Amino acid sequence: MTRLFNDPAAFSEDMLTGFLDAHAPYVTGVPGGVVRAQQTPPGKVAVIVGGGSGHYPAFCGIVGRGFADGAVVGNIFTSPSAREAYTVARAAASDAGVLITSGNYAGDVMNFTAAAEQLVAEGTDARVLFVTDDIASAPVEETDRRRGVAGDFVVFRIAGAAAEAGYDLDGVEDLARRANSRTRTLGVAFSGCTLPGAGAPLFTVPDRRMGVGLGIHGEPGVAEADLPSAAELAAQLVDGLLAERPPECSGRVAAILNGLGATKYEELFVLWATISRLLAEHGLTLVEPEVGELVTSLDMAGVSLTLTFLDDELETLWCAPTDTPAYRKGIARLAPDDRTQARIPKAPVIAQTDTAGIPSASPASRQAASTAARALEAMRATLIDSADELGRIDAVAGDGDHGRGMVKGVTAAVEAAAPLVERGAGITTLLSAAGDAWAAKAGGTSGALWGAGLCAAGASLTDSAPTVTAEDVVGAVRTGLKAVSALGKAAPGDKTLLDAAVPFADALEASLRGGADLHTAWSEAVDVAQAAALATAELLPRVGRARPLAARSIGTPDAGAISYALCARSALSAMTKEQVG
Amino acid sequence: MTRLFNDPAAFSEDMLTGFLDAHAPYVTGVPGGVVRAQQTPPGKVAVIVGGGSGHYPAFCGIVGRGFADGAVVGNIFTSPSAREAYTVARAAASDAGVLITSGNYAGDVMNFTAAAEQLVAEGTDARVLFVTDDIASAPVEETDRRRGVAGDFVVFRIAGAAAEAGYDLDGVEDLARRANSRTRTLGVAFSGCTLPGAGAPLFTVPDRRMGVGLGIHGEPGVAEADLPSAAELAAQLVDGLLAERPPECSGRVAAILNGLGATKYEELFVLWATISRLLAEHGLTLVEPEVGELVTSLDMAGVSLTLTFLDDELETLWCAPTDTPAYRKGIARLAPDDRTQARIPKAPVIAQTDTAGIPSASPASRQAASTAARALEAMRATLIDSADELGRIDAVAGDGDHGRGMVKGVTAAVEAAAPLVERGAGITTLLSAAGDAWAAKAGGTSGALWGAGLCAAGASLTDSAPTVTAEDVVGAVRTGLKAVSALGKAAPGDKTLLDAAVPFADALEASLRGGADLHTAWSEAVDVAQAAALATAELLPRVGRARPLAARSIGTPDAGAISYALCARSALSAMTKEQVG
Repeated sequence: MTRLFNDPAAFSEDMLTGFLDAHAPYVTGVPGGVVRAQQTPPGKVAVIVGGGSGHYPAFCGIVGRGFADGAVVGNIFTSPSAREAYTVARAAASDAGVLITSGNYAGDVMNFTAAAEQLVAEGTDARVLFVTDDIASAPVEETDRRRGVAGDFVVFRIAGAAAEAGYDLDGVEDLARRANSRTRTLGVAFSGCTLPGAGAPLFTVPDRRMGVGLGIHGEPGVAEADLPSAAELAAQLVDGLLAERPPECSGRVAAILNGLGATKYEELFVLWATISRLLAEHGLTLVEPEVGELVTSLDMAGVSLTLTFLDDELETLWCAPTDTPAYRKGIARLAPDDRTQARIPKAPVIAQTDTAGIPSASPASRQAASTAARALEAMRATLIDSADELGRIDAVAGDGDHGRGMVKGVTAAVEAAAPLVERGAGITTLLSAAGDAWAAKAGGTSGALWGAGLCAAGASLTDSAPTVTAEDVVGAVRTGLKAVSALGKAAPGDKTLLDAAVPFADALEASLRGGADLHTAWSEAVDVAQAAALATAELLPRVGRARPLAARSIGTPDAGAISYALCARSALSAMTKEQVG
Repeated sequence: MTRLFNDPAAFSEDMLTGFLDAHAPYVTGVPGGVVRAQQTPPGKVAVIVGGGSGHYPAFCGIVGRGFADGAVVGNIFTSPSAREAYTVARAAASDAGVLITSGNYAGDVMNFTAAAEQLVAEGTDARVLFVTDDIASAPVEETDRRRGVAGDFVVFRIAGAAAEAGYDLDGVEDLARRANSRTRTLGVAFSGCTLPGAGAPLFTVPDRRMGVGLGIHGEPGVAEADLPSAAELAAQLVDGLLAERPPECSGRVAAILNGLGATKYEELFVLWATISRLLAEHGLTLVEPEVGELVTSLDMAGVSLTLTFLDDELETLWCAPTDTPAYRKGIARLAPDDRTQARIPKAPVIAQTDTAGIPSASPASRQAASTAARALEAMRATLIDSADELGRIDAVAGDGDHGRGMVKGVTAAVEAAAPLVERGAGITTLLSAAGDAWAAKAGGTSGALWGAGLCAAGASLTDSAPTVTAEDVVGAVRTGLKAVSALGKAAPGDKTLLDAAVPFADALEASLRGGADLHTAWSEAVDVAQAAALATAELLPRVGRARPLAARSIGTPDAGAISYALCARSALSAMTKEQVG
């Protein structure tokens, strides 16, 4: 929802004040909107875009060289008045005429047409063009009733680039009409936006559902469907648009995958990965596609896919340099970096770890490796079950990623370990590979610590030892702990996994000295570790955490200590199936 | 929340696939992240940035000329592993050394330091730098414990621009450290983001509250406060940062007003309007400020303000050209438009309407003007009360802006009318000014229609008439209707305000012919208009609406017809206080 405003009724004016201040080198305010800071030179057509606000960077953000000469800025989702359109066009116009263009909405059509009529009455050649790219808003036999959505961006861009390139008004208008006739958009919405000061969103979409055929003014979709996977949605959007592929299409297309506001760049890229592949499978060649937020609708959640079927002239204009507050391209073309043109090779530049040669191992070491692999599998099952809870604990003072990171790491370790067991690897080889995989795949603090710990524990043993004793196991646990402590620069009491791991090692060693077998000793040590992990709730964290967050985390145990205790308990289940001690 | 994904566990990889495809001219994938598509030339320092993903355009979006040479890309909000940092740095490094830099988080510090150590062991000079700009995360005497948030962007940019400019590794590192020591950020959060596939947000903020001192990995804030106005928040952010203004500060500052994801550009500009004014009042000069989404946190709602206190060297680098997938500047500088350098004048270029000369008016016309002004005031009160309900009705098939647009328009009309009544204006002057003001201020479809209707109604009367009869009033209503019908190209039955207005005019005329006085006739006509407005629920809209939306609106009356009937009833209350007929 929109949260930052002063007087909701003055939202658009306040927005414009800030926009003009932030982008003063590009734009100047005039009554009704903005124009470029530099006057339109004689002989250049002025392209005026516009409509209601709430769609940034559309429309004031695209005023600049190679794009619009002026933007009429209405209130949120509301057409500017005829007078506003007139005053902006008047301020931007030179002697070569004006194209005024917007999406096809009744208010914009009415007001922009009236503005053009007034200009014509005064002797300035003025034309209007209303974009009709939204295929969901009317059937194909009534394209002139369709509304304009993200296709606005392409059509305005073609018109602006044509005017910059020196086309006359007939030429600019013709190209804009051609671009409009070859542009199709299909969108979906996941949630509605809330206007400044309004008590409720313009519309809502049920959880796990989506509205198909959204409008960029918060108009609801034309149908509703279950929320699909990204790959399924990509197919729906591509199929929908290609059903209207023009027969004269050359196969080269401009594309915009547009985020409406709250559907973020990472999601757009996930979706784009499949869209790009599908378009290629349909024989289409993408030309400088855009993936990002170009025509938004405040913080509405949703996306749209726009395709423009190019010819040579449209392609040249789509790719032309432009420099505006929110959209810039062409620097590299203007001033190529001639120091090197060598491309980085596409193939991975680092050789993968060679797993062909496995050191030969003693039966005892191989049995220990087998036990360790099963322990990792048991840990993995436990961590998957506990991931959400660990995330919640971690979120109190941290970033909430502990559970997911541990699952990533242990999964990588299991996958590295399993084939090694089959191929007869010893415990050192196995733990080293598992630790490397854990650290590489999990990342994060815990990934680095667990990776280092496993590798160090493995290095304290050998592949060739005739036996692996309980004392060897304690030694491995201790060595792993030392590596964790050295890497993390933490000590017991700092609210880290050491607060569970050190009591665990101490208890394990004490029980063994007292005569217990490894399984019994391990079991007793797990109880100690669990109690110690819970007791970290009383501690203050030390490393990498801000003091105020530390205070907040009092009363919550450390996620790393908890997961250590959980892993230690899981490992026990692997041992029960095996003779140990 | 994050809605678009396939396998949540593969989200980062899928994101990277789409990103690399969309930006192939800029970047190439390598194990662990991305590097520039062109190899780093001999003699150039490589700047490697990174951290967890989920912050786009940070960090892979800023790989390119004038910025980073490579980005290490971890899982969402999770540090990449040491090996990933190593492989990216190795792929990007030439012969002049590597600076590896990230925000100051335990995992990143651990892994990036290990990667640098490995590079050094292999004979490549490698340094690390961890950004500490977040003033909320630790007190000023412990700045090395602070975490890195949006200040990452400034520090990485300075390092990247310095490397591009040919500084050696010592120089790049020194500049990056200087930039870090002069960069401060303070942020607030309004709602938490939800990781792909997670069932709940990382944290929540109560409605109408905000968390102060947010972290960009979804860490909660360090304090909670009531949601302030934009102007109040601007003051809080500026005051917080200027409390740590370095003594050596020249007064020139780079600034980033950063949106976290769901707090949109329009809101940022509203906030920026006050921030910019306050910084100027503190004697600071802004240098190429950035207002937008530069370091996000998925769809978290929130903002942060970053200030970097510049010296000449830092300013040159901050302003240097750059060309990356998501951040580009310097085109104008590289290729200035020499056709004209004339600046558009800052003052309005269109003369405002001259209200000095008011045509003289007869007593009857002045009394009619006074009645009309009171009717507008009554309409305004009613429309304010009904705005939300009208918006909800309009949202069924439209964009939900009808109520707000009507209030904007009628308010402008009231404000235009009141001084004219005091100055003795007649009914034609008054209705014309009110109509112009309505159309200019409200915009939208209804603004254009009401403006045209009022102007036409006024023009059917005169300022000088000795009497204003009931027949004159009917004539004015009819003339206004004709103007609305002509402009909107609609007819009765099209589900527009005409469906209330035409029955209203017919009933008014019939009652008067039947001998009723104007007040009685108007009252009866209002009842007819109201019934007709409600009956529009059975109609299909005609203009500017997509067919599927039309179907959806069956059962809901037209908002324009309803508001017409409401306005007609309000006008009656103005007449009851006056002798009419």
